[in-house]
Amino acid sequence: MKHEVDLDFYNLYTDLTVESIKNRNVNDIEIKENVIGDIKVTEVEIDEKHSSIIGKKIGRYVTIEFEDITDSFNRDEVKKVFMDELAKFINIKKDELVLIVGLGNELSTPDSLGPMCVDNIEVTNHIYELDLLDEDYQRVCSIKPSVLGRTGIETSIIVSSVVKKIKPKCVIVIDSLASSSIDRLNKTIQITDTGINPGSGIGNKRKEISKETLKVPVYAIGVPTVVSALTIISDTINHIFNENKDNILNKYDEIKTIIDEILKENELDLVVTPTEIDYIMESLSKVISEGINNLFNKTV
Amino acid sequence: MKHEVDLDFYNLYTDLTVESIKNRNVNDIEIKENVIGDIKVTEVEIDEKHSSIIGKKIGRYVTIEFEDITDSFNRDEVKKVFMDELAKFINIKKDELVLIVGLGNELSTPDSLGPMCVDNIEVTNHIYELDLLDEDYQRVCSIKPSVLGRTGIETSIIVSSVVKKIKPKCVIVIDSLASSSIDRLNKTIQITDTGINPGSGIGNKRKEISKETLKVPVYAIGVPTVVSALTIISDTINHIFNENKDNILNKYDEIKTIIDEILKENELDLVVTPTEIDYIMESLSKVISEGINNLFNKTV
Amino acid sequence: MKHEVDLDFYNLYTDLTVESIKNRNVNDIEIKENVIGDIKVTEVEIDEKHSSIIGKKIGRYVTIEFEDITDSFNRDEVKKVFMDELAKFINIKKDELVLIVGLGNELSTPDSLGPMCVDNIEVTNHIYELDLLDEDYQRVCSIKPSVLGRTGIETSIIVSSVVKKIKPKCVIVIDSLASSSIDRLNKTIQITDTGINPGSGIGNKRKEISKETLKVPVYAIGVPTVVSALTIISDTINHIFNENKDNILNKYDEIKTIIDEILKENELDLVVTPTEIDYIMESLSKVISEGINNLFNKTV
Amino acid sequence: MKHEVDLDFYNLYTDLTVESIKNRNVNDIEIKENVIGDIKVTEVEIDEKHSSIIGKKIGRYVTIEFEDITDSFNRDEVKKVFMDELAKFINIKKDELVLIVGLGNELSTPDSLGPMCVDNIEVTNHIYELDLLDEDYQRVCSIKPSVLGRTGIETSIIVSSVVKKIKPKCVIVIDSLASSSIDRLNKTIQITDTGINPGSGIGNKRKEISKETLKVPVYAIGVPTVVSALTIISDTINHIFNENKDNILNKYDEIKTIIDEILKENELDLVVTPTEIDYIMESLSKVISEGINNLFNKTV
Repeated sequence: MKHEVDLDFYNLYTDLTVESIKNRNVNDIEIKENVIGDIKVTEVEIDEKHSSIIGKKIGRYVTIEFEDITDSFNRDEVKKVFMDELAKFINIKKDELVLIVGLGNELSTPDSLGPMCVDNIEVTNHIYELDLLDEDYQRVCSIKPSVLGRTGIETSIIVSSVVKKIKPKCVIVIDSLASSSIDRLNKTIQITDTGINPGSGIGNKRKEISKETLKVPVYAIGVPTVVSALTIISDTINHIFNENKDNILNKYDEIKTIIDEILKENELDLVVTPTEIDYIMESLSKVISEGINNLFNKTV
Repeated sequence: MKHEVDLDFYNLYTDLTVESIKNRNVNDIEIKENVIGDIKVTEVEIDEKHSSIIGKKIGRYVTIEFEDITDSFNRDEVKKVFMDELAKFINIKKDELVLIVGLGNELSTPDSLGPMCVDNIEVTNHIYELDLLDEDYQRVCSIKPSVLGRTGIETSIIVSSVVKKIKPKCVIVIDSLASSSIDRLNKTIQITDTGINPGSGIGNKRKEISKETLKVPVYAIGVPTVVSALTIISDTINHIFNENKDNILNKYDEIKTIIDEILKENELDLVVTPTEIDYIMESLSKVISEGINNLFNKTV
Repeated sequence: MKHEVDLDFYNLYTDLTVESIKNRNVNDIEIKENVIGDIKVTEVEIDEKHSSIIGKKIGRYVTIEFEDITDSFNRDEVKKVFMDELAKFINIKKDELVLIVGLGNELSTPDSLGPMCVDNIEVTNHIYELDLLDEDYQRVCSIKPSVLGRTGIETSIIVSSVVKKIKPKCVIVIDSLASSSIDRLNKTIQITDTGINPGSGIGNKRKEISKETLKVPVYAIGVPTVVSALTIISDTINHIFNENKDNILNKYDEIKTIIDEILKENELDLVVTPTEIDYIMESLSKVISEGINNLFNKTV
Repeated sequence: MKHEVDLDFYNLYTDLTVESIKNRNVNDIEIKENVIGDIKVTEVEIDEKHSSIIGKKIGRYVTIEFEDITDSFNRDEVKKVFMDELAKFINIKKDELVLIVGLGNELSTPDSLGPMCVDNIEVTNHIYELDLLDEDYQRVCSIKPSVLGRTGIETSIIVSSVVKKIKPKCVIVIDSLASSSIDRLNKTIQITDTGINPGSGIGNKRKEISKETLKVPVYAIGVPTVVSALTIISDTINHIFNENKDNILNKYDEIKTIIDEILKENELDLVVTPTEIDYIMESLSKVISEGINNLFNKTV
């Protein structure tokens, strides 16, 4: 009994709300599921009560789950679903300004999703200002604020400074996330209207970027691209405990101490990522950036 | 006579103040020259009177001229001179914040000097905030605001927004410049306390980034990495005119019209750059970034 | 009269055969033209006689000319035409190996077309060897041999060594070309069965990569992304001469000497390129790489 | 007893010979240690007998161990030691050709050490061929063969094809390695005269590149930049077993089965790497490439 709670301690950080719900064994949240081919779309509204239980902000979370994104057919299917789901979040006139923010470190492959997407986003704001654009194009601008370790400036400060000045109607942030399970790694896109919250993202160093801090709607698009090394170890230990409860559980506290010691010895913030992460990032960034480009600038 | 003035029209834009002085044939400005080995350092103070004649802002301009920067021995010599000259501009305490801004487009080699330098700058501001840094380190942060065509946002707006928020004691901007002569291409570093002015830089699209707009001292470090195609053609035509005055000058107006037509037919903003620009940029960005790192964080 | 021949001397190097034909005023070559929307496709067969006149190898040259490639609608149209024209050249079974070679320097934007394309090519050879691929996929492998200045090894040596070992059924080389006219810059794709010839490409340093040297068919795909600075100046001078023949032509030899002096003073190999070359390269490399991917791996 | 052997099964793959010796508890190999400041240099000769026990090739292995490489003072110290140790391996005249091979995937940060080093290596072979180089410079050329997943061609085939053609006097390969312990991650440089062996490197996909396959001496320089996820889990489990032998060991076989199942479910090849891998790679590649440049081209 006691151990069930303690084990939960090892269900470490996840940026995916659906994982949080599952990890905490919360059963009274309505989860709408919709299956489109091989793609599963999950929608959930987190209210005040559940927010405190699962540690996620109040708001709407849509999760698009898929399998192999490096296959170009799958990619086109996922892109369509992503576009449709993103469209449901965003309610904006063509001449209202959207700021797209690519969070993360473009020099570190698993953390480069945001910058890679922004490199492929069609920006139009400067053309709008010259009155050269026809009305089918959304007014779009973008920034890549890089990361604290590269700039020495908290990312949220750069974003809020620019937002205050250019006054976009809404902000879309794109970020690499951390998952608590290797099953969902690079196979999930989460869209939410809650923005980026303290502790999310790779390295857990982000400060809040949300409607509360920026005073305009903030939509966050994220993909889990890493699992913390601590999580993957705990995950394994949990499995072992579950299978060997009788013999091992009475040594649980000792074991917990050992794991803590092993991991704290190394000051490094270790993450687990697939070796072929470069291909995956190329595919994922295409899906997201082309999805956004198609949504905003109907080329068909 | 009349043509001498008109020909001057073809001495097209240069970001280098020493070139401007020469191009305009201004003779009453005191130019201090100092030769260190193969390196020539030129210092000039532009006052109100000369400012309007040469079209450069009032302030101090130091020009470091050198030959082959791809040779590692020369590179070290230039780095030392650069460090010394930059040090004369900057008067700041170790715990006062310096913001270093890498202007330009990292995806276009000749315009990538600023971003390449910033990638190599040691930032310390975030470590300062944790009180983890010893007092030999300058408090430094940096941004790469990218370019209007990539973000849809005027670069000066991003810089001024961030400056307003983080309140640095001074700003150093690094930029690729345009020269009016192929002789100085990639062989000159200009340091000035006047910042970046309207019309400077590659593509002539920058808006002012200076003490007047940011309310803190702005030091600009620039290297001419391109010559406009228009300049190189005019340069040649000028040479021909000078050599063939009697026969050609009376056709000057016709010729001028022809050049204009040729160049305006193509909407493209064409620049001239050496094919080996990638090596040169690597060498130049090392000189500048390591010079700044050594100046701020005495490692010897 | 005499000068007409001399002027031709200034119609400097072009890698485009259609330009060569035009520059040399050759009138007895049959040029098949086909217009598809805004796209013009030109096909020409060079025989032994014309080969020596225009300085291009005997073989077939297809030129696809278009306007704005940064527009995504145009891009799709050009991609279709490119795919169709490339398909006419290549006659190969699905299980026969194609080697795709990305020539050029990925660190220098105007010379990066080949490497950028290859980064986006779907390679399958290693999957074929595991018998894991269905028969709709062409057997494809690729290399990016970089450039002499980066490796110290002549590019043709790297390519021929690898070809000798892996024995592909055909080779496709992709390269940035030099044009003799700014009108066609970044607006033309040339496909030929003659390979890459001495003196072609940016920097004029390539050695031959062709059926003669590799013993397998070599198809070359090229886009003119630079004009030499010498060409652009000569082009302007030529225009002036044409308009002012009576007054200037008698000074022609003097002028020619002046131009030569101006340009030879600078050892640099100067090229002219648009400032927005980064966007253009992204669009061009998408057209070519996606065209090749679609041709080889029918995903529809 | 039985379990001690089995546990060893979980001491998974390491490319570091000193780790292999330790992991296999081999005690009769002479290990020469030399401490220079904070740097420890270990030298070991593996003979036929030990080769089969530890699974490493017969030859000489030098290991340079250090702590924080991102500090520029430490970096200079490590660079000096690295240069000295590398010099002891290489016996070559200035006009004899050295080929430097950067193995790995430059698009995946933890696997990019080889390509990053080669980008910074001064190549001189093409200048030698023009007789333009003074005799202080070593004759050097380089290639970056990329990885199987990017080219579809086995890396060893590209390297051996080029070696056969250009006939270098020796080959230096630089590669990212896998370690069996997070303690040595990014804090060790291994130099060996045994080349690259089957199963080494990230992803375990390399084929042999050695004196036996290339017919010239092959020196390999490697740094462990990843630990496999399987290793880190096993490592933890081993710790737990050691601390809880009495109660857990009798369940060992069950546990082993569980771990295997967990890890094999996911087809991905998962690696563990620090989040700040980009900074570390920049520092490591500087140490190695500048060390090689200084060794070959005495600039002092």
